[in-house]
Amino acid sequence: MDIKEQALKKHYEWQGKIEVVSRAPIETREDLSLAYTPGVAQPCLEIAENPELSYKLTRRSNLVAVITDGTAVLGLGDIGGLAGMPVMEGKCCLFKEFGGVDAFPLCVKSKDPDEIVRTIELISDSFGGINLEDISAPRCFEIEAKLKERLDIPVFHDDQHGTAIVVGAAMMNAVKLAGKKLGEITVVINGAGSAGIAIGKFLLKLGIGNLIMVDIGGIINRDENYENPAHSEMSKLTNKNNVKGGLADAMRGADVFVGVSKPNLVTPEMVKSMADKPVLFPMANPNPEITYELAKESGAYIVGTGRSDYPNQINNVLVFPGVFKGALSVRAKAITEEMKLAAAYAIAALVTEDKLSADYIIPSALDKSVADAVAKAVADEWTRSRK
Amino acid sequence: MDIKEQALKKHYEWQGKIEVVSRAPIETREDLSLAYTPGVAQPCLEIAENPELSYKLTRRSNLVAVITDGTAVLGLGDIGGLAGMPVMEGKCCLFKEFGGVDAFPLCVKSKDPDEIVRTIELISDSFGGINLEDISAPRCFEIEAKLKERLDIPVFHDDQHGTAIVVGAAMMNAVKLAGKKLGEITVVINGAGSAGIAIGKFLLKLGIGNLIMVDIGGIINRDENYENPAHSEMSKLTNKNNVKGGLADAMRGADVFVGVSKPNLVTPEMVKSMADKPVLFPMANPNPEITYELAKESGAYIVGTGRSDYPNQINNVLVFPGVFKGALSVRAKAITEEMKLAAAYAIAALVTEDKLSADYIIPSALDKSVADAVAKAVADEWTRSRK
Repeated sequence: MDIKEQALKKHYEWQGKIEVVSRAPIETREDLSLAYTPGVAQPCLEIAENPELSYKLTRRSNLVAVITDGTAVLGLGDIGGLAGMPVMEGKCCLFKEFGGVDAFPLCVKSKDPDEIVRTIELISDSFGGINLEDISAPRCFEIEAKLKERLDIPVFHDDQHGTAIVVGAAMMNAVKLAGKKLGEITVVINGAGSAGIAIGKFLLKLGIGNLIMVDIGGIINRDENYENPAHSEMSKLTNKNNVKGGLADAMRGADVFVGVSKPNLVTPEMVKSMADKPVLFPMANPNPEITYELAKESGAYIVGTGRSDYPNQINNVLVFPGVFKGALSVRAKAITEEMKLAAAYAIAALVTEDKLSADYIIPSALDKSVADAVAKAVADEWTRSRK
Repeated sequence: MDIKEQALKKHYEWQGKIEVVSRAPIETREDLSLAYTPGVAQPCLEIAENPELSYKLTRRSNLVAVITDGTAVLGLGDIGGLAGMPVMEGKCCLFKEFGGVDAFPLCVKSKDPDEIVRTIELISDSFGGINLEDISAPRCFEIEAKLKERLDIPVFHDDQHGTAIVVGAAMMNAVKLAGKKLGEITVVINGAGSAGIAIGKFLLKLGIGNLIMVDIGGIINRDENYENPAHSEMSKLTNKNNVKGGLADAMRGADVFVGVSKPNLVTPEMVKSMADKPVLFPMANPNPEITYELAKESGAYIVGTGRSDYPNQINNVLVFPGVFKGALSVRAKAITEEMKLAAAYAIAALVTEDKLSADYIIPSALDKSVADAVAKAVADEWTRSRK
């Protein structure tokens, strides 16, 4: 039985990967009068008087909504929210298993950004944070920006920021191992969807020397007019030498390749054309832009993919459980850029210098201690920024 | 420490009365690839092809949303959705503990019926059923009616129908014990809010002889013009003899009193003015329209209240866990009137004739076997109606 059949069989067995259970025992008359009427009136009145107490008297303090409109589910595209729910449930399992954070999956049956925003806004009091998931670009940028403006709880589009943070952590360690400086490297990102754009912006914040973004239309440059506002914005922030052409042109002389696109787009020749000690993060899933083996054969110094069966798995499960755990623990009103940077530094620092090697630049995706380190870094940064 | 202080202390300890846990273990690389990527793509694709499979491959098959706008929380009134969340969480505990049904609490930050309806509609794919809670009348009627029209999953406003069903069950047994016939009795309902209206309509379906509804403005009658559309409707369906006046006038000669109003409105004189073997269900909570003791002293034959510390507790926890358990088990698209009647008959039948007495007309609210009996009756009725 292959992985697809096995996973399907398991899903039929699970009948849902999450479960809502009671933390309050209801066996006796007294139980009922404490957890429900008449006793429950008291916490209600306390919250009515001081809304902040909802973080003490309900589950909100540890509860995140995982919300999708189903427009960009995994690599499957616009399959709809209902069909995306197994992914949302899976994400909720990871939140709980890795971060101890309760997460609940919701799909919104609309593709109109304003309607999605309004729906989430109207139910946001039920949660301590909002994790957006699998929403297509450029709609996801607008939805996230509007929600951040309107809500005073953390909003985080994991496909963007979770991916950006874990790539940032991996890149810092890879560049260090290669004996290069962030400020001097050129990074090529292939794929300018939600993940690609977010990775690009995050790497610029980390201080990389030059960034070249490539999409279906070729290298994003300043002489082109882009309909997609995100592409237009990136054309101004990237590509110092205003290089034009395709992926092969972009990769010539580059230090790092980041792929969030499609299988097998990178050839051995492209790898050979890169600078000394080339680093490749071909993360298309499950089939990367170039396989680990082929990249290595072609001279790659470090290779990291999205796959768990090769070294250096770049997986945002290293990020989102800890980010929300940390943010919730200090009742942060947002996930700031500084908190994201703190998360990336914390993840990179978990690979100590004595252990750092070409096949170990990032902690294992299954290492459940990562979330605590990330949570602490994120919480400390929020607290620091309030002083 | 009184019950209020105790309940508050407990709520601080619980830090939320519900918890979302994972049903899928995530310890190994294989676990991750089955519950999450890449394996999870397969159940997504199956649902995309056949949406009905969401009932097999996600938690939807056993999951109910408990939704409020916070406009009529307990007897506390319009305290807002956020402040109502301890009640919603409590309800979710009861769903799980009594019916084995997963339930998740949501508050909607709007008082506009159309916006509430649209919000619930947009997230409805995430659930197998919708339990509306603590929404003020007459808005609740409109919201429920529109949702029923638009959704093909069960929608149930528990304050209305749960209460109506449990009152119906108690009344059938009380009337039987009093040696009267449903078709010959006169019932007075004091309070024409969501519960009162729903109880009234349900009792008419059960076939009672005459119904008199009383609200703040007095007996609802045919010579009055009512702004509230529900009151206007009830004026045409009730009050056979078009009696006018106040509560005292309504109760003169009546067989049954049902109170969903305020404490201490019923006097000993009113009880004495009722027909032989008077039955009283003063259900204002926690302080009834007349106390159990005073009603008995005044000649009441049977008294049932909302309180757990007196006989005959009329509590809708006997209803909603079983109703949803049954509806979900057969993937019912709605809770029909016939299913509600089936639930009431099932609850009444659990009190066998050899046990039926003035102080035992309804099963204990803590009897967890009730939900199964209700579930079976509700499921059987849905299945029967499809044949």
